[in-house]
Amino acid sequence: MPVGARVAPTLSPDGRLIVMSDRYAGFRQIARDLGVDAVALVPGSNFERLYHQAFHSHERPLVIIIPQDGAPAAIVPDLELRSFDLIGFEGEVFGWRDQTGYDAAFAALAAHLPLRALAVEGQVMRVFVHHALCRAMPGLRILDAEARISGLRICKTADEIAALQRAIDISEAALGDLLDDLHIGMTEKEIEARLIQALFAHGADDLSFGPIVAAADNAALPHAHARADHATAAGEVLLLDFGARKDGFCADITRTVFLGHVTDHAADVYDTVLRANLRGLEVTRAGVSAHQIDDVVTSVLEASPYAHGIRTKTGHGLGRDVHEAPYIMRGNHSPLAAGTVYTNEPGLYLPGAFGIRIEDDVLVTDTGYRTLTRFPKALKVVG
Amino acid sequence: MPVGARVAPTLSPDGRLIVMSDRYAGFRQIARDLGVDAVALVPGSNFERLYHQAFHSHERPLVIIIPQDGAPAAIVPDLELRSFDLIGFEGEVFGWRDQTGYDAAFAALAAHLPLRALAVEGQVMRVFVHHALCRAMPGLRILDAEARISGLRICKTADEIAALQRAIDISEAALGDLLDDLHIGMTEKEIEARLIQALFAHGADDLSFGPIVAAADNAALPHAHARADHATAAGEVLLLDFGARKDGFCADITRTVFLGHVTDHAADVYDTVLRANLRGLEVTRAGVSAHQIDDVVTSVLEASPYAHGIRTKTGHGLGRDVHEAPYIMRGNHSPLAAGTVYTNEPGLYLPGAFGIRIEDDVLVTDTGYRTLTRFPKALKVVG
Repeated sequence: MPVGARVAPTLSPDGRLIVMSDRYAGFRQIARDLGVDAVALVPGSNFERLYHQAFHSHERPLVIIIPQDGAPAAIVPDLELRSFDLIGFEGEVFGWRDQTGYDAAFAALAAHLPLRALAVEGQVMRVFVHHALCRAMPGLRILDAEARISGLRICKTADEIAALQRAIDISEAALGDLLDDLHIGMTEKEIEARLIQALFAHGADDLSFGPIVAAADNAALPHAHARADHATAAGEVLLLDFGARKDGFCADITRTVFLGHVTDHAADVYDTVLRANLRGLEVTRAGVSAHQIDDVVTSVLEASPYAHGIRTKTGHGLGRDVHEAPYIMRGNHSPLAAGTVYTNEPGLYLPGAFGIRIEDDVLVTDTGYRTLTRFPKALKVVG
Repeated sequence: MPVGARVAPTLSPDGRLIVMSDRYAGFRQIARDLGVDAVALVPGSNFERLYHQAFHSHERPLVIIIPQDGAPAAIVPDLELRSFDLIGFEGEVFGWRDQTGYDAAFAALAAHLPLRALAVEGQVMRVFVHHALCRAMPGLRILDAEARISGLRICKTADEIAALQRAIDISEAALGDLLDDLHIGMTEKEIEARLIQALFAHGADDLSFGPIVAAADNAALPHAHARADHATAAGEVLLLDFGARKDGFCADITRTVFLGHVTDHAADVYDTVLRANLRGLEVTRAGVSAHQIDDVVTSVLEASPYAHGIRTKTGHGLGRDVHEAPYIMRGNHSPLAAGTVYTNEPGLYLPGAFGIRIEDDVLVTDTGYRTLTRFPKALKVVG
């Protein structure tokens, strides 16, 4: 059943495995802190950061088990074994084929590395893998350690920030092209298609997420879908929330523009949202908590005549996932560390009328912040 | 806590709820068959088929509970409530806000609709939702009913087949453009970028998955990644596995072409794979099992001198998900129903040398089949 090679282990005088430059150190520490035997990883952002290789899991379980000490072990679909070789895996690999199923591989893993308690990425691992683990190891306690495991990704390295900047630069170049081309009367769906093509023309590897292109009352839905049957008209707002993915990292930017002209009312709502966004930037620096940022941002909105239009928190972390820790909301008292990138995206949503959102991607530094998004935020009338 | 309106119920003489034209009938039957209280749905393909609306769940749980009888209930993030209104939901809605978390909403759901056993989509629901359900309802038994729930999507309607055909037509038009433009010396990554742009230029809403663009030895990995540092050269194979998503449906097509010239050896491997693909088509018609199709396809490969290059089953169902039931493999004795669309994608993977895969999207009919992919499969030399 085991296939693939185990790296010859180096043993310490007391017989414990020594791994030079242990890429698993952070995960092992989590296992120790939580009092579990091991951490499990499945394909996703934590996996990609560790191994610099993406796998698409679909219906096939692929799981890495990282114990407190010693070599990791893995369950890998047979057809991925050669791709898996590329990651230089250090432990035992249990392969399985579609035709015979994966339960035997989980059983072999359980015999090789018995577990009583396991920390998993609760927002990534799906129930069928959870069930397969529990079938193979009756009584196994599975702990959702998403916050701790994904927390390892919060502080970005210089290379990671550079990749994020590339994704953002592509996104802003595409937005510039789009606004140059835009004419009133295009449908939301046509604008969306133009935006997507511009993103790939500027070098996107993928989309961070399906863009939100919403005019008029549709912009009052925070997660609207572009309509094929709504032709934009003068006097409407147009909200654009989108991002390119580049080299594994996700941009996420929102700008809201006005088509043809703008009413005093809409301009005042825009100004309120912009002031909230700027207030959040002002207080940003390492050591400030996510709570404090959301509190000052939301307070600006609450103090306005449009407080009933508040729907969302200020933002979220940004990196390999388009939504990741830290979540910028009241109640999250974790201090932000230098190297964190978060979205500052206050909005006001007025049902039946329109919505405004302005979103920047913000790097936290020791002395303050740097906005990685640089597309102008002054009120803009286009078309 | 409950928000949103409940539809006024219609009661039968014995006091049971009557729902006219019950869109939940299939799910209720699954709950009865499995002896569980209800079926849970989370955002994904089953959800979209039911409600014709997509939601992106990210870190926020959104769950629908469909009991054996009576009105459904839902847990919905506050910022999605207005989008959620669009689906015409018939039951109680428990909203929650980021700032206060979702446990109170799950507890309110549990009080409203107590459950002892629940069937879930094991390949869609993530562990954090599973845990939230179990925290709110201690002792809850969660059953992975992925096969039954997603099984409701196997037989496609005429409208669904038309959407699939649109996705496939876009994909084949893009492939035609790409092969016209292709020149030897482009890197895999450059070819991938060109392909993606062509897909969106022809009207794709999204990609079905990140394309596989793999030349030479990289094509020997079934799920290869395009390399930025590999310039294609004459004499190499080029494997292209990709698809457009259109109107919620996924195309999935593979063609393998030869750059400049082809050796007798590679042509013979190609011919073997093509014969396997054609043999699978020959036996396809409603009533034939997934096992039988995989058996005849794989037998062609096994009878060749390249049997050591077999890595995968013949294929998988195709629809809203790019991989879905039925899985076309030995051991799956379910007869295929008319209206099923599956991928017929035999391949041979010769490590260090090259790989060949040919993939059609095939509609099963009462009298045989119709290939929705129509791009020629005869051996092609390009560049």
